[in-house]
Amino acid sequence: MAGRFLVVNFKAYQQAFGPQAVEIAREASRLESRLPVRVILAPPAPLLGRVLEAHGDVYLQHVDPVGFGAHTGRLPVAAAAMLGVRGSMVNHSERKMVLRDVEAAVRALREAGLESLVCADTPGEAAAAAYMGPTMIAVEPPELIGTGVPVSRAKPEVITASLEAVRRVDPSIPLLAGAGITSPEDAVRAVELGASGVLVASVVMKSREPPLVLRGLAEALATA
Amino acid sequence: MAGRFLVVNFKAYQQAFGPQAVEIAREASRLESRLPVRVILAPPAPLLGRVLEAHGDVYLQHVDPVGFGAHTGRLPVAAAAMLGVRGSMVNHSERKMVLRDVEAAVRALREAGLESLVCADTPGEAAAAAYMGPTMIAVEPPELIGTGVPVSRAKPEVITASLEAVRRVDPSIPLLAGAGITSPEDAVRAVELGASGVLVASVVMKSREPPLVLRGLAEALATA
Amino acid sequence: MAGRFLVVNFKAYQQAFGPQAVEIAREASRLESRLPVRVILAPPAPLLGRVLEAHGDVYLQHVDPVGFGAHTGRLPVAAAAMLGVRGSMVNHSERKMVLRDVEAAVRALREAGLESLVCADTPGEAAAAAYMGPTMIAVEPPELIGTGVPVSRAKPEVITASLEAVRRVDPSIPLLAGAGITSPEDAVRAVELGASGVLVASVVMKSREPPLVLRGLAEALATA
Amino acid sequence: MAGRFLVVNFKAYQQAFGPQAVEIAREASRLESRLPVRVILAPPAPLLGRVLEAHGDVYLQHVDPVGFGAHTGRLPVAAAAMLGVRGSMVNHSERKMVLRDVEAAVRALREAGLESLVCADTPGEAAAAAYMGPTMIAVEPPELIGTGVPVSRAKPEVITASLEAVRRVDPSIPLLAGAGITSPEDAVRAVELGASGVLVASVVMKSREPPLVLRGLAEALATA
Repeated sequence: MAGRFLVVNFKAYQQAFGPQAVEIAREASRLESRLPVRVILAPPAPLLGRVLEAHGDVYLQHVDPVGFGAHTGRLPVAAAAMLGVRGSMVNHSERKMVLRDVEAAVRALREAGLESLVCADTPGEAAAAAYMGPTMIAVEPPELIGTGVPVSRAKPEVITASLEAVRRVDPSIPLLAGAGITSPEDAVRAVELGASGVLVASVVMKSREPPLVLRGLAEALATA
Repeated sequence: MAGRFLVVNFKAYQQAFGPQAVEIAREASRLESRLPVRVILAPPAPLLGRVLEAHGDVYLQHVDPVGFGAHTGRLPVAAAAMLGVRGSMVNHSERKMVLRDVEAAVRALREAGLESLVCADTPGEAAAAAYMGPTMIAVEPPELIGTGVPVSRAKPEVITASLEAVRRVDPSIPLLAGAGITSPEDAVRAVELGASGVLVASVVMKSREPPLVLRGLAEALATA
Repeated sequence: MAGRFLVVNFKAYQQAFGPQAVEIAREASRLESRLPVRVILAPPAPLLGRVLEAHGDVYLQHVDPVGFGAHTGRLPVAAAAMLGVRGSMVNHSERKMVLRDVEAAVRALREAGLESLVCADTPGEAAAAAYMGPTMIAVEPPELIGTGVPVSRAKPEVITASLEAVRRVDPSIPLLAGAGITSPEDAVRAVELGASGVLVASVVMKSREPPLVLRGLAEALATA
Repeated sequence: MAGRFLVVNFKAYQQAFGPQAVEIAREASRLESRLPVRVILAPPAPLLGRVLEAHGDVYLQHVDPVGFGAHTGRLPVAAAAMLGVRGSMVNHSERKMVLRDVEAAVRALREAGLESLVCADTPGEAAAAAYMGPTMIAVEPPELIGTGVPVSRAKPEVITASLEAVRRVDPSIPLLAGAGITSPEDAVRAVELGASGVLVASVVMKSREPPLVLRGLAEALATA
């Protein structure tokens, strides 16, 4: 039961910038206090302050592997530490970096005392991520992202092969499943395959009642 | 006297994420209310909320020419409108885009009722920017950025040639001068050359007393 | 009649790597010797040698603004000079660079005694290119490239506005029209609008008889 | 003794475009015929023809994961097959791609009947490459490239950890060592550590007698 993770990537959906952002944060806070599940939210950078007021378990969607300085439109890891977030997503399918920058970001986050969630398209990329020693890895076949076709049904072998690949390097790193997760059953199925949780986006952000959907997923993960 | 502009790019300096951000915003608000100078601040995205509480005249440092949707670590123009900012910088020397993306960003900002400040390295790039009909253009020789060697002294011909280039296309677009501006005298000199104001960063952000430096620049621009 | 240009971008069409490459080169050589038209060919880099044996008027499709040295998979301008080409295309719609790299490439080509053909999407980009002093500029609305809908019919105003924009900066720079040119009439129409020639690709490369198509275009340009 | 590899990346050194290119190719051909070592040359794209006339074992320095078509300044995998090369380097330190493009290139090369040599900075990247099933992998710590400080002396643990990482995935994939190899002894040491050969560049390309240096390396590998 320990070590279940529900990560919500707000992406740049319209709802990510509206009142839903805080509603989701409040529900996440309630869920985290009563269930053995970490509910990590990744809002757009301008919403960090508002979301952090309601829920402390927040990640950036992306961080730049640079130090403080003359960088316009970039967010250094050291700044992330000042903002009160717990960590950052790195290398999301929609924000891919060359591997050496992924590695630099993971290292800088660790040195700043922050967590890192590295996204991978494939078992091979998950293996590469494992060598970097991130806090967590999420595997998401990009062709399923946003489709509503859950990876845990359509490509369970991607989850199991990624688990195998990560375990060979470091069995202590939790692996999350992502892409197409649209129901509590999909999340349960991912856990049954060996995942430590799920990374979701549209299923929460584009629903009419995001807090309700969030609760359903968290409760399913708690009892899986 | 009308149409004087002082734009402060906070970049990713450490001070941009600390208490100085709000101190600068408060001073900017006071200055804008008593002087015939617009004082526009461009803080890092996570600081937008805090800065906007103290000063209404805020730009993004960068905006992505995309719509709402499945974009991780990106900020769509339409989201900018929801955040209460007045506009965005586009194509800063440290965040260059290919020209067609610059054009797409300027158009999207205009359609969202927002302002745009397009940065250019050279008179030629300033001319290209003028064809897009942005709110303002800033010319900054990249080799002088952050040096303390002011463009208005070291390369006045870049300012005058840019003015000439922009005027040929649309004489109503204000041109700001940037790069190496370190004193009120540099700002005055830029105005004497024909600029409508200045774009600064390190001179304010890295000073011991940012509000004081800001005031000096604004007062100089007001009386130039 | 002087200063008519027919530029053929071979792109990466299959025919660019086959026997057609040399057939086109031979016909180009014949045409250039009997018509007052420069016929410039831009084959893929591995075909340069074969094409140059049959026709001396050859451009690279792209050049990297770097010097000789430790660059893998890049082609420095100085190497272009050693290869016997006359110049290079720069900033093609399918190989866009940020403006400062376009400028660096044009300058390096000039310093190496080579010609440059800068591609532009819009009149504004053409103006920016003109400030760099290239040998030629080609304007190609990217939405028409490869469509068979000729810019000279569908968007003649792009050609005339680009001519106007370039003339304001330097009236001596020839402007070519590109995108969707599929017949000698389209080429003639471009010249009637004021262009000095055309930049074509698919109409030649994807035809059953490339040399014949090339001849038709060259003859039309010669008499327009 | 079987399966020894000596790969020479010509990069964009001036010598890569001069008469040395063919001299190296001739020596490579002689060496391959008398020693149990494959000597693979990776010249710049415009030199492919000249090098192939003297030596059949040639790789591209880089290939683009695209098909034939409207791509300017790009080299599709299918074109590589038409050019007579045996394969291509992929993801060299100076031409990094995001991992999904590396994977697409390796797959396309395999489907075209061509070989692939994937470069990796670290054991983790080598592991990721192994999952793609390339013909070979080369590990090169980028901080040593071109320094003359050989990886086999300065960072032998990178070679051994990469071997271990690759073997866990697929022990049949040969691993080459690169970066800073400057003498036959460095090459021998790499083989003693378990590598199947070396990837070199400046030691051959920038020497006064490239064929002589090449011979020394090949003979050392043959007897290691």
